[in-house]
Amino acid sequence: MKFTIQKDRLVESVQDVLKAVSSRTTIPILTGIKIVASDDGVSFTGSDSDISIESFIPKEEGDKEIVTIEQPGSIVLQARFFSEIVKKLPMATVEIEVQNQYLTIIRSGKAEFNLNGLDADEYPHLPQIEEHHAIQIPTDLLKNLIRQTVFAVSTSETRPILTGVNWKVEQSELLCTATDSHRLALRKAKLDIPEDRSYNVVIPGKSLTELSKILDDNQELVDIVITETQVLFKAKNVLFFSRLLDGNYPDTTSLIPQDSKTEIIVNTKEFLQAIDRASLLAREGRNNVVKLSAKPAESIEISSNSPEIGKVVEAIVADQIEGEELNISFSPKYMLDALKVLEGAEIRVSFTGAMRPFLIRTPNDETIVQLILPVRTY
Amino acid sequence: MKFTIQKDRLVESVQDVLKAVSSRTTIPILTGIKIVASDDGVSFTGSDSDISIESFIPKEEGDKEIVTIEQPGSIVLQARFFSEIVKKLPMATVEIEVQNQYLTIIRSGKAEFNLNGLDADEYPHLPQIEEHHAIQIPTDLLKNLIRQTVFAVSTSETRPILTGVNWKVEQSELLCTATDSHRLALRKAKLDIPEDRSYNVVIPGKSLTELSKILDDNQELVDIVITETQVLFKAKNVLFFSRLLDGNYPDTTSLIPQDSKTEIIVNTKEFLQAIDRASLLAREGRNNVVKLSAKPAESIEISSNSPEIGKVVEAIVADQIEGEELNISFSPKYMLDALKVLEGAEIRVSFTGAMRPFLIRTPNDETIVQLILPVRTY
Repeated sequence: MKFTIQKDRLVESVQDVLKAVSSRTTIPILTGIKIVASDDGVSFTGSDSDISIESFIPKEEGDKEIVTIEQPGSIVLQARFFSEIVKKLPMATVEIEVQNQYLTIIRSGKAEFNLNGLDADEYPHLPQIEEHHAIQIPTDLLKNLIRQTVFAVSTSETRPILTGVNWKVEQSELLCTATDSHRLALRKAKLDIPEDRSYNVVIPGKSLTELSKILDDNQELVDIVITETQVLFKAKNVLFFSRLLDGNYPDTTSLIPQDSKTEIIVNTKEFLQAIDRASLLAREGRNNVVKLSAKPAESIEISSNSPEIGKVVEAIVADQIEGEELNISFSPKYMLDALKVLEGAEIRVSFTGAMRPFLIRTPNDETIVQLILPVRTY
Repeated sequence: MKFTIQKDRLVESVQDVLKAVSSRTTIPILTGIKIVASDDGVSFTGSDSDISIESFIPKEEGDKEIVTIEQPGSIVLQARFFSEIVKKLPMATVEIEVQNQYLTIIRSGKAEFNLNGLDADEYPHLPQIEEHHAIQIPTDLLKNLIRQTVFAVSTSETRPILTGVNWKVEQSELLCTATDSHRLALRKAKLDIPEDRSYNVVIPGKSLTELSKILDDNQELVDIVITETQVLFKAKNVLFFSRLLDGNYPDTTSLIPQDSKTEIIVNTKEFLQAIDRASLLAREGRNNVVKLSAKPAESIEISSNSPEIGKVVEAIVADQIEGEELNISFSPKYMLDALKVLEGAEIRVSFTGAMRPFLIRTPNDETIVQLILPVRTY
C-alpha cells in the first residue's frame, strides 16, 4: 500500500472514525484504525463493535486531486498514535506506505514516522446491510431529532432499553421517544416514504450522540437503513453503523396527559434564566428541587430553599396564566434540559395538578413535546 | 451593611479573591469571602491561609459611581454559592444587604437571594506588613518573570523548598530561579532600587501562578513588599499576600556550565514542532526521551524510538552548528516547556557533552537561561 493524501482531509477522516474507537476494548485490533487504499480512494474504519464508522476519501473531488494512489493495499494502525501523528505533521501532504511485516512509513516534509501496523485481514468485517429500503432525512433535521430527544435517555443500566431512543415509523411519520422514567422527550417528523412501511427500533443514545458529532450542519440527505439488529446512516463519504438495543420499548403514549388544569405561556429565556438561578441553591442533598407557584391573572414565582445555605425567590411576568392556582416542585436540571432544546421565544407549560406529569411545548408546534414528572414535596 | 454595586465589577472582584479560597480548608470560615463596606468602597477578601487576596472596589472611579454605600458593615458569605450567584444575576446592578443574624439579601431585578452569612469578626486577619521598602516592577514584566520560571518548580514535596521560586535581590538586580533538580529556569531583571538592598526568599510556585492569573496585561507598577515570612504584591485595587517557604534555597550557580563544546542555533518554531512530533512516540513506559544528533557543518536530527509502537526521525536545518559532534537524549517535556517561554525567532543551545546539563537561550539575551539535564541512554 502506498498513497499520498491531503493532510487536512486525512485529519478530518481520522477524527471522525476515531469516535468509534475505544481504548477499553476486549478485542485488541479494535484499538486500531483500518486503512484501505483502492483505485477509487482511501477508506478509514474505526469500531468498538457497537458503533462502526467508515470514512471514505475519494481520489478526486470536482477537479481537485485529493489522493494519489501508487499501490492499493490495507493496514491497521494504532488509533491513538496515528491520530496524534497526523494532526502534528508539518506539511500539507502526507505519504503513507506499508513495507514488510506491516511496518508503515508516514512521511511529511522532513518528518518520517515508522509505525508497527497490524494485518487488515484480522480486522472484523462491518455488518452487511442490504439497502433496498432507505429512509431519507436532511442532515440538519436529523441532528435536531437527536438533540431534542437523546438527552432524556437513561444513564442507568437497570433498564437497558431506556438507554436508547425509540424510533417508530408509522404512516409516513417518524416518532422519536426518549425517557429515563423521570422525564420524557418526544419529537415527530414527516417522512417521504410509503404509508405501509413501519419500523419500531431502539437506537443506543451513545450512538446517536456520536453520529450527531460527525455530521456537518447542512441539508444534504442522510440515507437511513434499518434492519433487525443494525441501523446504518449513510451521509456523504461516511457510513455510520450502530447495533440496535434488544427488547421492547415501553408504550409511553398513555403517560402524556391529554387535558390540563393550569396553562402558562412565558418568555423562554427569562424562564430558563430564573430556573438556572434558582437551581444554584437546589444542588445540596435531598432538596434538589425548584418550586413554581402560579396564580392565574397574577404572576409566576420560582423559588428554592436550602435551609443551611439560604433561599431564592424570583417573580416572572407571564404572557398568560390560565386555569387553577398551582404549587409544584420539579428537578431544575430536567427543566433546563427541556428548555434548552425547545425553539422559539415563548414556551407553553401545561400542568394537570401538582402530582401529575406536565408538558412543555412551543406554542403552535405539535412536533415536539417535553414531559417532566414533578417531585412530591407537600 | 447595605450597598448597591455594579454587577460586572462585583463579578470581577469575587472571581479574583476566589482564587485564594480552597474548599479543602480545615478552617471553615475560610470557605467564605469576607465583604467589608466602608465609606470609601467595598473590599472582598479570600484566603486559604497560604495565599490571601483582597480586592477593593472604590465608591467612584473618575466620574463614575460604582458603589453606593447605604450603610457600612461586614459579612462573610459562602464563596462557592456567592460567586455562582453573582455571575447569574439578571441586572447590571446588585443590592447587598445584611439583616439580623447575618442573613444577607442579594437583590437584582426580580431575583432575590437570602444567604446565611457568618460573622466577619471571626475571619482571620490578613498579615500586617510594613511598607517602607517596596520594590516596583511593571505588571507585564512581573508576569513574564513568573511565566518564564514557575513551570520549572518541583511538584514533589520531597524537597519542599524546590516547590518555590527563589527571588534573590542583589546590587539592584532580581534573580528568579526555579528547579526541580532535572531542569532549571533562571530569569534576571534590573530593579530601580539602591544597590545595598538585598533579599533572598522563596515564593511558593502556586502563589506566583495564582498571582499571574489575576494581574491584567499592562505596564502599571506593582509594589512588592518582602518581609521575613510574607510577601505582598500591591497592584491597582488588589492586595495579594503569600507566605514564604522556610529554609535555604540551594546554590545553583555552579550548575550552569560556563563553556560549551557544541553550539547550535535553530529556528525556535521548527525546533519546537519537531520535538513535539518526536514526543508523540516518547510517551510510553521508561523510554520517555527524544534524541538529538548534531554533526557540525551538516544537520541536526531529532528522533525517538518506542520499540513496540514505532519510531520517528526528522532532520532540521540549523542556522549554525559549531564544535564537536554530539548525540544526546533528553525529556521532550522539559525541552518543550523551556522553548515555550523563550522569546525570539531563534534559539541557541549550548552543550558540554552528552552527560552534562545544556543551556537554551535566546541569542544576545542574557536575562533568561533554561537548563536541562540530559538522560543517560548510552
